[in-house]
Amino acid sequence: MKAVKAYAALSAKKPLEPWQIDRREPGSDDVEIEILFSGVCHSDIHTARNEWRGTVYPVVPGHEIVGKVTRVGDSVSRFKIGDTVGVGCFVDSCRHCSNCKDDQEQYCENGHTQTYNSYSQDRKTITYGGYSSHIVVTQHFVLNVSDKLPLANVAPLLCAGITTYSPLKHWNVKKGDKLAVLGLGGLGHMAVKIASSMGAEVTVLSRSKGKEKDAERLGASHFKITSDPENMKNMAGSFDFIIDTVSAEHDYNQYLALLRTNGVMVLLGAPPSPSEVSAFQLIGGRRSLVGSLVGGIKETQEMLDYCAEHNISSDIELINMDQINEAYERTLAGDVHYRFVIDMKSLN
Amino acid sequence: MKAVKAYAALSAKKPLEPWQIDRREPGSDDVEIEILFSGVCHSDIHTARNEWRGTVYPVVPGHEIVGKVTRVGDSVSRFKIGDTVGVGCFVDSCRHCSNCKDDQEQYCENGHTQTYNSYSQDRKTITYGGYSSHIVVTQHFVLNVSDKLPLANVAPLLCAGITTYSPLKHWNVKKGDKLAVLGLGGLGHMAVKIASSMGAEVTVLSRSKGKEKDAERLGASHFKITSDPENMKNMAGSFDFIIDTVSAEHDYNQYLALLRTNGVMVLLGAPPSPSEVSAFQLIGGRRSLVGSLVGGIKETQEMLDYCAEHNISSDIELINMDQINEAYERTLAGDVHYRFVIDMKSLN
Repeated sequence: MKAVKAYAALSAKKPLEPWQIDRREPGSDDVEIEILFSGVCHSDIHTARNEWRGTVYPVVPGHEIVGKVTRVGDSVSRFKIGDTVGVGCFVDSCRHCSNCKDDQEQYCENGHTQTYNSYSQDRKTITYGGYSSHIVVTQHFVLNVSDKLPLANVAPLLCAGITTYSPLKHWNVKKGDKLAVLGLGGLGHMAVKIASSMGAEVTVLSRSKGKEKDAERLGASHFKITSDPENMKNMAGSFDFIIDTVSAEHDYNQYLALLRTNGVMVLLGAPPSPSEVSAFQLIGGRRSLVGSLVGGIKETQEMLDYCAEHNISSDIELINMDQINEAYERTLAGDVHYRFVIDMKSLN
Repeated sequence: MKAVKAYAALSAKKPLEPWQIDRREPGSDDVEIEILFSGVCHSDIHTARNEWRGTVYPVVPGHEIVGKVTRVGDSVSRFKIGDTVGVGCFVDSCRHCSNCKDDQEQYCENGHTQTYNSYSQDRKTITYGGYSSHIVVTQHFVLNVSDKLPLANVAPLLCAGITTYSPLKHWNVKKGDKLAVLGLGGLGHMAVKIASSMGAEVTVLSRSKGKEKDAERLGASHFKITSDPENMKNMAGSFDFIIDTVSAEHDYNQYLALLRTNGVMVLLGAPPSPSEVSAFQLIGGRRSLVGSLVGGIKETQEMLDYCAEHNISSDIELINMDQINEAYERTLAGDVHYRFVIDMKSLN
């Protein structure tokens, strides 16, 4: 075991603070990574504050990790010391169920191991995430990261990038499709970038007039304020897809009404409480309300390669580790353009 | 105009009673049909009692119609006097929007004309349904009915049949798929027959132990009581599809949890009020909650031909017209195996 520096929440009500955790010595299939950058996802806040319940304290959040390989086990062939690599939302899975065999480890039937606040496959050890100096991950769950893009901006691709890329691919979004992105935050701004790169005509739906210029810069063709009933009326039945990134409570029916026949609304944000759905909204236009959870490892690598090729990364604000609590507050206030990323050398 | 006998509800609170309506003289594209059998759908009750709001009284329900052609207009080539034909849930649409051109008249972007309680394409004339001696319908919306099957049993195919056939085809239900049917009523029993004919392994989910034998006779491989928590737990994550035919309020989340990864729950029944949906249930397994509305005319003909070929029709209880109010009460009490069909010669 090796003691490493980290930042942890010690209870739901406490700010994050410096902490020390143990990382295992790399086994034969393991890759030890020095973490360079760690993105700040809304899930980190939900978990640190036990808003989804089930948080085990102390918790070390962080699942948007980019770093350098510092050690590898004997059986590791895909990585060598000095390689730039990434780690996303999960670090292990059973690897023998049908979903794992189908490269959909995110839906592992026996329960995948998330990067933090999750039981390892031994069902005993709790995982600690990216707000730490190092992490040790079995090689199958380590991604190759190109050096073409600025690494701090790549970190958020490991969650926000794959979470938006995966449904766009799965539901086959293509040139000419009319696609709305609901909520222009960390996920939303990646959805705009990736969907527009795929040729979709993107409309950003937002409550904040102030985001219009950004929406256009990111690749959106249109920007509509959702609080204006006239806008909502005019958009009725007009979208093939809605990518819903909002994790606060909101009215699904209002947005389902904006879908064309056979339209698909993809939930990526998870409000803590259920929302009402009218069967009429679904039946009347054979509409679909669906959900999607990050993406498998193979697809995450595909996404990273796609983003490198298309010059896509996250808009970020780089912070030091000790600014994390302030960053949480600003994230909750919507004051982030569009992802905080921690410069992990500030941990020292 | 021609005055014909019918049965109508004159207000939401009144039982149906004998009434007289006018049918138009057949125009050049019209087919006049003497109605032999008219199925009794739950929608008839919702509409007669204004439970979906918007009922215009007097209302003549009925959209599961089988009859004989009595007159045809000059331009009608597909039908001749004496042909056995069917009419389903709608009798016209704009015929030039993209959905109409795509044989999806049920999703006509300009509003299709339903068989009853609906405005004709002139936006003035209200339609009257199948609880009447005759109906006049433009030829595109008239279906060919084979004489291979008993015609009274064919009538319910025009709504219950196509409503279940269409989503099974659209979502590509195939041999080996595990499919649950929620609710064994008019729609549900057709879903069991059609899905099992397509090779799916069908489980009936019901609250009534008494329907087990019927479920097996109809083609189901399994029958599970949903009020038993142990059953629900054992079925978690086990179905590729759930065909939800229940139009009373119920908990969608409980059933979404029974879907496998990528599973699809199809809503065919429309509870008057919205139901709560947990985003977690959809996101966790990339599940889909979808709706489907009857089927287009081309697909309805395909369904009728499929049913004739596979010897599939509805289980019915034949009633006389003056038993309709009692039939409504029995339908609401779930006391129907599995569709009331009115013998329309009893109208005389």
